[in-house]
Amino acid sequence: MFKNKDNNLTKLDNIGEFNLIEFLTNDINIKHKSTLKSIGDDAAVLDYRSKKVLVSTDFLVEGIHFDLSYMPLKHLGYKAIIVNISDIYAMNGIAKHVTVSVAISNRFTKEAMLELYDGIKLACEKYKIDFVGGDTTSSTSGLTISVTAIGEANQKDIVYRNGAKPNDLIVVSGDLGSAYMGLKVLQREKEVFKVNPKNQPDLDSYTYLIERQLKPEARLDIIMLLSELKIKPTSMIDISDGLSSELLHICKQSNKGCDLYENKIPYDPQLLTTCEEFNLNVTNLALNGGEDYELLMTIPQVHYDKIKGNPNLTVIGYIKDSDSETNLVLRDESVVKLKSRGWGSSED
Amino acid sequence: MFKNKDNNLTKLDNIGEFNLIEFLTNDINIKHKSTLKSIGDDAAVLDYRSKKVLVSTDFLVEGIHFDLSYMPLKHLGYKAIIVNISDIYAMNGIAKHVTVSVAISNRFTKEAMLELYDGIKLACEKYKIDFVGGDTTSSTSGLTISVTAIGEANQKDIVYRNGAKPNDLIVVSGDLGSAYMGLKVLQREKEVFKVNPKNQPDLDSYTYLIERQLKPEARLDIIMLLSELKIKPTSMIDISDGLSSELLHICKQSNKGCDLYENKIPYDPQLLTTCEEFNLNVTNLALNGGEDYELLMTIPQVHYDKIKGNPNLTVIGYIKDSDSETNLVLRDESVVKLKSRGWGSSED
Repeated sequence: MFKNKDNNLTKLDNIGEFNLIEFLTNDINIKHKSTLKSIGDDAAVLDYRSKKVLVSTDFLVEGIHFDLSYMPLKHLGYKAIIVNISDIYAMNGIAKHVTVSVAISNRFTKEAMLELYDGIKLACEKYKIDFVGGDTTSSTSGLTISVTAIGEANQKDIVYRNGAKPNDLIVVSGDLGSAYMGLKVLQREKEVFKVNPKNQPDLDSYTYLIERQLKPEARLDIIMLLSELKIKPTSMIDISDGLSSELLHICKQSNKGCDLYENKIPYDPQLLTTCEEFNLNVTNLALNGGEDYELLMTIPQVHYDKIKGNPNLTVIGYIKDSDSETNLVLRDESVVKLKSRGWGSSED
Repeated sequence: MFKNKDNNLTKLDNIGEFNLIEFLTNDINIKHKSTLKSIGDDAAVLDYRSKKVLVSTDFLVEGIHFDLSYMPLKHLGYKAIIVNISDIYAMNGIAKHVTVSVAISNRFTKEAMLELYDGIKLACEKYKIDFVGGDTTSSTSGLTISVTAIGEANQKDIVYRNGAKPNDLIVVSGDLGSAYMGLKVLQREKEVFKVNPKNQPDLDSYTYLIERQLKPEARLDIIMLLSELKIKPTSMIDISDGLSSELLHICKQSNKGCDLYENKIPYDPQLLTTCEEFNLNVTNLALNGGEDYELLMTIPQVHYDKIKGNPNLTVIGYIKDSDSETNLVLRDESVVKLKSRGWGSSED
């Protein structure tokens, strides 16, 4: 079956760059009136009226950021959009437009590219993003994706990393550590597969973890919730590298310190059981794992009643006045210094 | 001498991504009031007020778009900015901001990256561009650069590819074909060097051609000139792929035809002598060579007196009503169909 199919696949050598872009993007619908010109000219033309324009860009490189042996191309396309628009939400803005550039070696087929773009389009549909430009080109080896996300905010609503004030609550959305644990599960399965290719993996007990790794979501819902609750965080950042380095970014840029409580960090139950199985420290995963794409923010205490009991937001600590005190308060109430890489025994 | 120096170079393994960005960008000055937030947060914040926002993005991949054996890194950085802002000028807009992402293998040193960024910064200085964000990351092989250029224009001033009208003058800035000839010269020198590494190349007779290839400029001056002359082209595109495919883009998107006159295409004298030496057809180079980054535009005949005799602008043909007639009028006055790749005998 597969063999027959393979014969019908289209080598990328056979189609020119221009046709490929047309083929990959001809079914894209423009959602925003603000998109005055999309693909097909020298540049896209966007209308942001009186709003400020937010721009963020990221690279995804095969062999560094993803491994195609367990990352389906459609998921990769989806994730490429998510990691970029997450940065726009982290400014308390709304992502509106993306450009996507892809460099591919000729080992990829046209059908493979279509899968990648299906994932890109799916994320654009879900988050109401207009795909307005980009580039496809050859590479001598591997797949590289570069996405630029563009969004908007009223100037008064923009949240930077540098506004945290003493006694502000440190708040995080969702739960942490699962995306990295999902990667560990997938890496173990890859090793098992190498030894015994006939082994059928049973991944049922890891579905949440794997989904967090392969198909993360960006927290547009949190930005809408904050707006609804009339809460403007004093600082915000998205968690791409792990809680500790992100919180230290906020502390450093705000010239403040923090007390982060180990026992307050939110986890999914699946992560806790899997950490036991893998003999990994769950706090370490949350602090250093990364790729959760949750939002970390600081909020004045006056808003506490509005977020108390909300399952999407967890208070995990407080901002302190002294920038030399960036503390992690352990479960036994002892205090250690928060470090940007590694805490306690480093498993990786 | 070189050996000693090499020992002092810094392997990229030794410095983290965050430090590298800081190191590479810490001396960048912000030029525009519209840059509300540059590097250092989740996204840049830009203020375009009532202007429309123009966005263009491009990939430069080692082994595909450049060869480091004759492309110095500083020139590569410069060119990466030029090819992107050229797209903004081709919309009759002014480029204001760029983001630059770089993926690099560990064969590059910190000092090499500094050279690359020196070129990027030089282009940003010259064209008054604010460098507002980006990403540096590892790659498993080679160097890949992704630039997104952002610019502005009043809605009424924007020029698309699709507005050409019958009898409009087809006008090109500067001269064509030299960038591609420069590439041919460099490729020949590389072959000579392989055979005889001690050979000292004498490139004095090719300086203009090599400069066009290694350090192209974008035609901001032409955008200013058009504004001064109160000329709004009916269509415009920048010449990255060669005159014929760019003119065919304009014709196709405008549903028009053209008469392009072979004997009107402007050349630099150095190109003509080098074409003779290499036994290459100069028209073929202009039509299909690419990388000239000149502007190709269509202008209503009423403006002819304003551009007549201007050394920066050359009339090379006329737009025709019928979209089936995309003609190249040869020197002997015979007419052939303009093709997007190749005309006459193809040397490459």
